[in-house]
Amino acid sequence: MKKPATSRPSSPISKTRLEFLFDGIFAIAMTILVLEIKVPELSDRHSVAELGQALKHHASVFISYLLSFFMLGMLWYHHNQHFRHLERITKGILFLHLVQLASAAFFPFCAALIGRYATNPLSMVVYIGCIITYRWASTAQWMLAKKSASLSRDLTQAEYRHFRKRNWIVSTLMTGMFLLYLFNTLTK
Amino acid sequence: MKKPATSRPSSPISKTRLEFLFDGIFAIAMTILVLEIKVPELSDRHSVAELGQALKHHASVFISYLLSFFMLGMLWYHHNQHFRHLERITKGILFLHLVQLASAAFFPFCAALIGRYATNPLSMVVYIGCIITYRWASTAQWMLAKKSASLSRDLTQAEYRHFRKRNWIVSTLMTGMFLLYLFNTLTK
Amino acid sequence: MKKPATSRPSSPISKTRLEFLFDGIFAIAMTILVLEIKVPELSDRHSVAELGQALKHHASVFISYLLSFFMLGMLWYHHNQHFRHLERITKGILFLHLVQLASAAFFPFCAALIGRYATNPLSMVVYIGCIITYRWASTAQWMLAKKSASLSRDLTQAEYRHFRKRNWIVSTLMTGMFLLYLFNTLTK
Amino acid sequence: MKKPATSRPSSPISKTRLEFLFDGIFAIAMTILVLEIKVPELSDRHSVAELGQALKHHASVFISYLLSFFMLGMLWYHHNQHFRHLERITKGILFLHLVQLASAAFFPFCAALIGRYATNPLSMVVYIGCIITYRWASTAQWMLAKKSASLSRDLTQAEYRHFRKRNWIVSTLMTGMFLLYLFNTLTK
Repeated sequence: MKKPATSRPSSPISKTRLEFLFDGIFAIAMTILVLEIKVPELSDRHSVAELGQALKHHASVFISYLLSFFMLGMLWYHHNQHFRHLERITKGILFLHLVQLASAAFFPFCAALIGRYATNPLSMVVYIGCIITYRWASTAQWMLAKKSASLSRDLTQAEYRHFRKRNWIVSTLMTGMFLLYLFNTLTK
Repeated sequence: MKKPATSRPSSPISKTRLEFLFDGIFAIAMTILVLEIKVPELSDRHSVAELGQALKHHASVFISYLLSFFMLGMLWYHHNQHFRHLERITKGILFLHLVQLASAAFFPFCAALIGRYATNPLSMVVYIGCIITYRWASTAQWMLAKKSASLSRDLTQAEYRHFRKRNWIVSTLMTGMFLLYLFNTLTK
Repeated sequence: MKKPATSRPSSPISKTRLEFLFDGIFAIAMTILVLEIKVPELSDRHSVAELGQALKHHASVFISYLLSFFMLGMLWYHHNQHFRHLERITKGILFLHLVQLASAAFFPFCAALIGRYATNPLSMVVYIGCIITYRWASTAQWMLAKKSASLSRDLTQAEYRHFRKRNWIVSTLMTGMFLLYLFNTLTK
Repeated sequence: MKKPATSRPSSPISKTRLEFLFDGIFAIAMTILVLEIKVPELSDRHSVAELGQALKHHASVFISYLLSFFMLGMLWYHHNQHFRHLERITKGILFLHLVQLASAAFFPFCAALIGRYATNPLSMVVYIGCIITYRWASTAQWMLAKKSASLSRDLTQAEYRHFRKRNWIVSTLMTGMFLLYLFNTLTK
């Protein structure tokens, strides 16, 4: 591999390996979601009706599985769109990635909580709180990358502003709705 | 890396990373199948006969493990054959991949269910239903890839038709047999 | 990437992806070994003596963890040595790889069994049986690769024979000792 | 890929694959930390107060999760800094890597222990003992790599000394504090 012609310092942390760690943690988080779905206990092993009843009774667990799987898939997609514009991984960016990953790895617990206590507002608070932490880490990362000149030079100023704006809008909207929901929950 | 000579837009989503996520989820699903096999409780820790009895009693769990492992291995092989012909990953293809992956990650639950209630027809319905979902997502993907011009130009029209035909036949046959089985189960 | 100058057909299955699946399953099997080690229940949460006692009582679980981790590490190392000489991955080689991987993924169960019932000869039979299955799949693969002309042409005939011989000796010796042990166990 | 111009023997073990195994095990260890956090049992499924109480009661489990996640993240970062200077992976280096990985894969157990028995000094001993094992394997590796001429020739003698010195200081300091703590714990 040739050194780039310009004098910009190379990435302090291997981009390939961080991508790898990221994809690995997402793959695992998405797969262990299923570990929270327990095989029901039946009194009659052969009864279709009883098994059907037991599975129907756990419907919220299955819905939570699907919802969380696609939520993680969507976050993975967004990371994909952002990460390609990053050229250097600084310590700050690594730290914010770890915050994102800690939220993603925490997802199976959130999914289990909401699957079990779907009607408990606090489950929703924990679940959305986890997504919002992820979002803010992503938003902060984007601005930090700009500040530390770690973005690809192929990204135009207009594109950067577009990404930043969308990031801010989504994160702020989600946080606003979250706080409203939290306020409603606590004062009920 | 040089830009390709033609003007076709580059892949919106990194093919390498999707391949990575796919292989990661398959590796994990195949490995956590084993978590459903529990070490039996023995009254006499040293008794060969009792442990042998306990393991024999769980034979269906072991068979389900092997069956599911090789089933996932086969699906992985088929993905391998298809994926090499994909050149661009569009949002639609990513979505269908997530459907496939959600089915694959759901497999350990299906395997546990069938291992535990091998004689319950509903277990089989869930198990096969999961495979069929995977198959249809794969079939749909193949046609979507054609429509969005995401297939490699090395793939001839005849090869494409061959793949599509085989996909349709397998998916339709499986669905037909599944519906027949479902009908028999529900009316018994 | 340029096509190779010779007319040998290219690998039917992506070597990189199989390597990936292999390493992924090994990484997971090695890590979920730890899931079998349970945090003990204490009557006095603050008691150093009671926790020490509880951990000492589970000593065989920890030994089994270490043993199994390094055993998988050793198998991984051997695969590393063999796999670099493979040039093409045929369906037969993939199948034998899946047999190897099913054994490796089964290891956490074997480790849990032997950690819990260290003094039960049948635990040892299952544990060693799992390793032997792995070994024979590896030996068979080596010969199949030769037969289907899938080995790298850099590998000399003498090197091939050396590998094959070592494979046979280790597999046969292990199987012999295993059968002897099995015979002793069953007739006790 | 061209052979390097010099006559130094090539890496006996694939560096890419070891990196892969390492990142895989770290990704999994970091993700299964969450499996130790159990969804609490509630008498009233809808009660925000009860769920809040239950989660607050398990605060130490959540703190242990975060702490351990970032600890593993830091160890991963350090490996990243060291590994880029390794050019060849010898058997000795592989062995020391396996020691590191066995410690890292053991982390979820340590995290669960300290999350459950935060006030028990022995939990802390196990936790820190695990980190220290990792550190010494890393320090030993660094010196072994020097001795076996496996370090990259881009690394200057001064840089090597700087890394070695820092490694020694951190490992020795941690071990000293650990022994002091151990002594205090055992004589209390």
